[in-house]
Amino acid sequence: MSAQPRIDFWLEFASTYTYLSAMRITPLAKEAGVTVRWRPFLLGVVFKGLDWPADSPFNWQPDKGRHMWRDMERMCRVYDLPLVRPNPFPQPTILPARVATAIAMDPEADADALAQFTQAVFSAEFGRGLPIGEVETIAGCLREAGLAERYLGDAASQPIKDQLRRETETALGLGVFGAPTFITAGGELFWGNDRLEQALDWAKQEVA
Amino acid sequence: MSAQPRIDFWLEFASTYTYLSAMRITPLAKEAGVTVRWRPFLLGVVFKGLDWPADSPFNWQPDKGRHMWRDMERMCRVYDLPLVRPNPFPQPTILPARVATAIAMDPEADADALAQFTQAVFSAEFGRGLPIGEVETIAGCLREAGLAERYLGDAASQPIKDQLRRETETALGLGVFGAPTFITAGGELFWGNDRLEQALDWAKQEVA
Repeated sequence: MSAQPRIDFWLEFASTYTYLSAMRITPLAKEAGVTVRWRPFLLGVVFKGLDWPADSPFNWQPDKGRHMWRDMERMCRVYDLPLVRPNPFPQPTILPARVATAIAMDPEADADALAQFTQAVFSAEFGRGLPIGEVETIAGCLREAGLAERYLGDAASQPIKDQLRRETETALGLGVFGAPTFITAGGELFWGNDRLEQALDWAKQEVA
Repeated sequence: MSAQPRIDFWLEFASTYTYLSAMRITPLAKEAGVTVRWRPFLLGVVFKGLDWPADSPFNWQPDKGRHMWRDMERMCRVYDLPLVRPNPFPQPTILPARVATAIAMDPEADADALAQFTQAVFSAEFGRGLPIGEVETIAGCLREAGLAERYLGDAASQPIKDQLRRETETALGLGVFGAPTFITAGGELFWGNDRLEQALDWAKQEVA
């Protein structure tokens, strides 16, 4: 397939289970020898296509939502991660998604800049319950990742907005219907944090 | 909590992931020292409550359905289980659910009769692609489980129909929103085949 095992990590900043994967993927991928491409997109656009309420399914399906939060508590204990429920849930994610896109588009950025910013955002949101739709929070995340605040300005530019929209359309075209989603270089799609290890293993086998 | 670790296994005969759990749970529960109560219910009633289309979400969300079948292929390989897609999917499940209820209600039935019938139905449906809404298939499953065909007659009686309806309402009242669902004696709810091991472990800890 490809000389270098690789997965694309399609991520939505409002997604609880993406938090789990974002905090776990770096050491796991390193151990598996798999390169990760971090690809932020807007999952809300997918839900809109289903004519669903403009809200998380975890809110308009209360039993499913109750289980999700309890499952998150249990899984965060398994993974030794903090968990604070942001209010409101889901958080508006256009701002962090655009800033992440600006970092991804910057040819000068370090290879791991996007990973570090993304992890800082998820830590702020689900580790500390901070409002990630607000400029101050995202400015703090940039600082935490050692990145310049200018990405906040870039994020508001038309090319970055267009690029995020294109990425979301690309995700839809690839069959992404939830987050996190992992797609190997060979096109194998895995949905959900529960499949992270299997996806990495698959990517590794593709080049074995 | 309780002297004997126990989980209730809420199962829907049309559900692909319930197939995986039904075929795996017996040795895992035995190893964990956990008693399993097999509790058939009708998941369609839950979906009706959400005003969803009268069809599996895996059909009216095609990307999600495509992933589910591919995930089933991968997971069946992991678990060494056969997989044949029944046509149509989902299968109508009132008949096997009522027969299972009749077995559950029979004070003369062996302790593992319901488990063996349920496994025979899931094997027929997803292991061989047989139509489980048809009397001949279910008669064969009863024979396979060493059970009398008279359960087919019992299944058509009003008390059995009422009992299945009550069980479905009980499931709804407990917060069941999908299948498989596992609920420990202490009330801890786990959704999905991916949580089977964790549910058994939790049930074990409750009495430790």
